Amino acid sequence: MIETVHRPGSLARVLQVIAEAGLVIEHLQSLRREQGWTLWEITVEMDEQADRGLYERIDALPTARFVGKSDRVFNRHRGGKIEVRSRIEIDSPQVLRDVYTPGVARVCLAIRDDPAKAYDYTAIGRSVAIITNGTAILGLGNIGALAGLPVMEGKAALFAQLVGLSGVPILMRATDPETVVEGICAIEQSFGAIQLEDFAAPQCFTIEQELRRRLAKPVLHDDQHGTAVVALAALLNALKRVGRRLEDSVIGQIGLGAAGLGIARLLQARGAGRILGADKNPDAFARLTALGGSPATLEAIMAESDVVIATTGVPKLIKPELVRPGQIILALSNPDPEIEPLAAIERGAAFAADGKGINNVLGFPGLFKGALDAQARAFTDAMLMAAAERIAHLAPDGELVPDPLDREMHSQVAAAVRAAAEPDGFST
Amino acid sequence: MIETVHRPGSLARVLQVIAEAGLVIEHLQSLRREQGWTLWEITVEMDEQADRGLYERIDALPTARFVGKSDRVFNRHRGGKIEVRSRIEIDSPQVLRDVYTPGVARVCLAIRDDPAKAYDYTAIGRSVAIITNGTAILGLGNIGALAGLPVMEGKAALFAQLVGLSGVPILMRATDPETVVEGICAIEQSFGAIQLEDFAAPQCFTIEQELRRRLAKPVLHDDQHGTAVVALAALLNALKRVGRRLEDSVIGQIGLGAAGLGIARLLQARGAGRILGADKNPDAFARLTALGGSPATLEAIMAESDVVIATTGVPKLIKPELVRPGQIILALSNPDPEIEPLAAIERGAAFAADGKGINNVLGFPGLFKGALDAQARAFTDAMLMAAAERIAHLAPDGELVPDPLDREMHSQVAAAVRAAAEPDGFST
Repeated sequence: MIETVHRPGSLARVLQVIAEAGLVIEHLQSLRREQGWTLWEITVEMDEQADRGLYERIDALPTARFVGKSDRVFNRHRGGKIEVRSRIEIDSPQVLRDVYTPGVARVCLAIRDDPAKAYDYTAIGRSVAIITNGTAILGLGNIGALAGLPVMEGKAALFAQLVGLSGVPILMRATDPETVVEGICAIEQSFGAIQLEDFAAPQCFTIEQELRRRLAKPVLHDDQHGTAVVALAALLNALKRVGRRLEDSVIGQIGLGAAGLGIARLLQARGAGRILGADKNPDAFARLTALGGSPATLEAIMAESDVVIATTGVPKLIKPELVRPGQIILALSNPDPEIEPLAAIERGAAFAADGKGINNVLGFPGLFKGALDAQARAFTDAMLMAAAERIAHLAPDGELVPDPLDREMHSQVAAAVRAAAEPDGFST
Repeated sequence: MIETVHRPGSLARVLQVIAEAGLVIEHLQSLRREQGWTLWEITVEMDEQADRGLYERIDALPTARFVGKSDRVFNRHRGGKIEVRSRIEIDSPQVLRDVYTPGVARVCLAIRDDPAKAYDYTAIGRSVAIITNGTAILGLGNIGALAGLPVMEGKAALFAQLVGLSGVPILMRATDPETVVEGICAIEQSFGAIQLEDFAAPQCFTIEQELRRRLAKPVLHDDQHGTAVVALAALLNALKRVGRRLEDSVIGQIGLGAAGLGIARLLQARGAGRILGADKNPDAFARLTALGGSPATLEAIMAESDVVIATTGVPKLIKPELVRPGQIILALSNPDPEIEPLAAIERGAAFAADGKGINNVLGFPGLFKGALDAQARAFTDAMLMAAAERIAHLAPDGELVPDPLDREMHSQVAAAVRAAAEPDGFST
């Protein structure tokens, strides 16, 4: 918020100071004019470490004064992004007696006699635990579960907005897989499904496997399989655009963390021709081999692959001169890709994209909604592939993926997942 | 739903059949009249075990036909009573980037650097885990945690409606205290406060104590202390009505389960003159003695006490001839009290009430709202007593307690609890 004297050039001088700080104006509007001063709201993207002297330099201008600032991102998180609401207006003693004591006792006994009735008379069939231990929050590393809560609340807000599910963030302290699994099994009854989120590799693999073995409900580590679904959707559209088939393609994966291995697994299940993988951590090779892929160097991958998928988190890892003409390149790390799409195209790539639009939000809401609607006892590859194909199908012409905020898209993905769950006999 | 011929006496005959089944009409309305038949909606309170022949007998009337029935209580629970909602409309890519990636990363880092910021930028300061293992659901006994979920959702719905808190039901399988405590500590970071609910005695005592020792946040076993707060509020008003002081009264407690001991503890802290206690389980006596009370028989209690508080769950346990003239009697078991208030009054009790209005709903919403608003690190006796006194103070003339659905009442209780938390130095 800045006030300027109502005189030619006074706003221009403010914008010049902002420009000199290297900041781009996102939005600007006048709020009022009083006694020869105009109040402006100027929106810029800047982080907290940005030059603190900016406000003083604006204030020092003879024709402007700095009035105040607010941080839009922090404002949007203030007080949290989710809340639990009652679906019933409890406004009379009669309603209170029905929804609480004594009426509720009959509902409890009905569920005791037939636990499946919990899906009719409680919210469990719409509930998803969003569980993290904070060991791999976004690209920020092990910052702890509490610091990851804004991400978990973000997922819960998206569940609510996009498909009407109730996501409940659950924060765990434990990092060893066994304690994590025990902790989740101790409370799993509370939820219809479980989304594992931002658990670091390699523990994430063990934790998910063990939970899938022990629980008869949908469990999904989103960083592996949610990402894989969205990447497969984008890849299907990219292949279509260049007229190539997955079955005939050599796939090269650079980065074999949770996302990379999740993608490799799903591509393998979808019948990819051959999968090569590189990672700086050689432990990842054993997991790749177990999936049917072959370890390789980055250079070998760039030389041999028809499709390159990078999920390393390392900006500019792929040198443009390694690009083989005709390649499809998906450099998915955010915010900075392993190779700029334009640079890849210039070196002859048939198609190149970064991870900006390739967002998990495209996948997880419909995956969970479909699995819960089917009362599926697990996520299956058929369900993941059905989601990927529907997402790919719904992308507008010229786009790899659809708009992630399109509720109709999520509803169609959920329907596809539900349909894929049923023939496998997982529905109850 | 019943249709009757539009002719004198046809509805009366239906009501006569219902009356012969021993059922009371709660509500009756005509919905439409067509071709000489009137459609009526008749509401009665009946349980599922009620005479199934009723519908056939109505249908057999020449001037009526049975159209259908629905169960209002089950209908009100259908699909569950709570849902998680987004507090932000995520309707543009800009909002998505702010509340989810990449914007959320800055909020995560701010919380990593200063965990107290979680109270500003997440919903944790409004969240209460409502935890049960199903071992003592209502008066139904150990029916399992899943069968108890409708009760936990009821509490969550009341939290939302009455004080705007987000209650999250957490169901545990474990019954041994150590495993329960470990399970809760594994996820306690997720919530601002913890309400323990319907854990059986005596495990409930150990579990609560251990959690209070280990966690720096409000933990409350509602069946002990929530009940105690509401019972103390009712007792303060009963004492006022008969012109007696708690400090000068001998209190006799019949039943020393979670509720009985919780009440004894709070009355002791509030300065009750002397506390006698009876229970069929002699193990309870050690706990009573530790609180400063004295074991006694039911007969001795009835002979010596100025105030009798019964929490046994056993209907008609107290024979009217044992009532001492001038006694205050609170027979709190629901739905059927240990002695009917009228029978006690007839034998000379100065005041008698049953548990119908003495509902925990009067207490727990304001207790948790106040504790969370104060960011209290524990519930203290000062907070419990402040709640009881405010509830007592807000009861209308002639009533022991206020209307449990009065939001202004809950807001005042919360303010009293918050104020009581602060002088103890528990606020942050």
